[in-house]
Amino acid sequence: MLVQTVLTVLDWCGIVVFAISGALVASRKQMDVVGFVLLGTATGIGGGTVRDVLLGQLPVFWVRAPGSLVTCVAVSCLVFATAHIPQSRYRVLLWADAVGLALFAVSGAATALEVGAGAVVAVAMGVVTATFGGVIRDVLGGESPVVLSREIYVTAALLGAAAFVLALQAGAPRELAAGLGFTA
Amino acid sequence: MLVQTVLTVLDWCGIVVFAISGALVASRKQMDVVGFVLLGTATGIGGGTVRDVLLGQLPVFWVRAPGSLVTCVAVSCLVFATAHIPQSRYRVLLWADAVGLALFAVSGAATALEVGAGAVVAVAMGVVTATFGGVIRDVLGGESPVVLSREIYVTAALLGAAAFVLALQAGAPRELAAGLGFTA
Amino acid sequence: MLVQTVLTVLDWCGIVVFAISGALVASRKQMDVVGFVLLGTATGIGGGTVRDVLLGQLPVFWVRAPGSLVTCVAVSCLVFATAHIPQSRYRVLLWADAVGLALFAVSGAATALEVGAGAVVAVAMGVVTATFGGVIRDVLGGESPVVLSREIYVTAALLGAAAFVLALQAGAPRELAAGLGFTA
Repeated sequence: MLVQTVLTVLDWCGIVVFAISGALVASRKQMDVVGFVLLGTATGIGGGTVRDVLLGQLPVFWVRAPGSLVTCVAVSCLVFATAHIPQSRYRVLLWADAVGLALFAVSGAATALEVGAGAVVAVAMGVVTATFGGVIRDVLGGESPVVLSREIYVTAALLGAAAFVLALQAGAPRELAAGLGFTA
Repeated sequence: MLVQTVLTVLDWCGIVVFAISGALVASRKQMDVVGFVLLGTATGIGGGTVRDVLLGQLPVFWVRAPGSLVTCVAVSCLVFATAHIPQSRYRVLLWADAVGLALFAVSGAATALEVGAGAVVAVAMGVVTATFGGVIRDVLGGESPVVLSREIYVTAALLGAAAFVLALQAGAPRELAAGLGFTA
Repeated sequence: MLVQTVLTVLDWCGIVVFAISGALVASRKQMDVVGFVLLGTATGIGGGTVRDVLLGQLPVFWVRAPGSLVTCVAVSCLVFATAHIPQSRYRVLLWADAVGLALFAVSGAATALEVGAGAVVAVAMGVVTATFGGVIRDVLGGESPVVLSREIYVTAALLGAAAFVLALQAGAPRELAAGLGFTA
């Protein structure tokens, strides 16, 4: 189905973008390549992992299909290979975070709806999927004030997931993601 | 059954009280309403979520019955609306923490027994349910020394859960909770 | 089967060694006996718990067989009783960490293979099992830079789990663990 394909693409884009954001944190911390891979992978698949556990979709998605795991490792290595180019690393990080968040808010809500959850739970899952990758990244990276400085992102994820769930009858996830990207 | 009803009431009270404690942390951090809802909800349902995952009761309780999710959001908003009244916020937080802990230690142990776990596991589940809401709150809120300054609470949860499991034959969870509240 | 027995022994040794490392952190923080038990137990069974949840092996292993829970509590109490003997506590902690990591990297990978996961996932599970006990310990203990200062350990776990998976056809997990201990 078309909607399904669009969602799969969204999910993959979110994983790649969050893996980049995790690897960039490793870059700021001057870690070695293992640190890049660890933080990139944990950030890329962390949100979806928490979502799958809470919904009881076990084993989690990257155990069922390790392609996303391999992708995260590859993306992290790529960032490691190119991250010495310093130009505005932090700006890229913020951008990656916002885009990944928009993508995951929608795909998280969609996954919850697929397994039969109601609208309230779907919105909550969108928020969880979108924010927990970043939470895991910051806890592992030893950065403390996670939610504090990123409330704007949580708000964006909430709005995005809510808008997606409301808009589902119209079958318009694409426009939604665009609208959310604007909000973030 | 009466015991079952009492436990459900305990569980709901624990969720509300922990949601208040999470929202009060958001208040101390001067967060906006989204921060209140996020911290209040994560604290209110966090302990029970970890319990359900460890026991394999999936999807977790608030996906099965989103009423508790809605309650946490409502309670957090209520705290946001009234928290500018400064009078002894910290004292209320400590009180909420202690009461919620006593309630969750008992309801966590009871849930474990219900799904057929032994006494040792039930006590451990009481401790996990009672303490992990607060742990998640402090990690998200960026406060570091979680267990360090709250050992007395862990001890209280341990005693409460143990006393409840031992007292179960007498069918007296009510008195137990009272006794635990005294300890905390 | 012999391999199975060896793995069970590895797993138990890893649990005991990590429980010691958790209790030693409690010792450095001058906690009371409850802090020792909490940190020791969380560290000892934390990695395996995350592994079981991700693989969907629920309820987690210590709910199915609480022996490991009891062992962690006993080991923590033992460390509490003897930890006032100050001689080079930190060195013992580092040693315990390295040995436990080697043991868990192998047993985590083996568990993943047993439930039918592929090689990539098995290596990832080895890393997760080996590192998450320590991550949970540091988060609970309020120590921030977890991965940063321990990249060498993550590398060791990665190498150990990868070598084990590759060497499995030769059925030589014992030598592997030794080789890994050397690396760490």
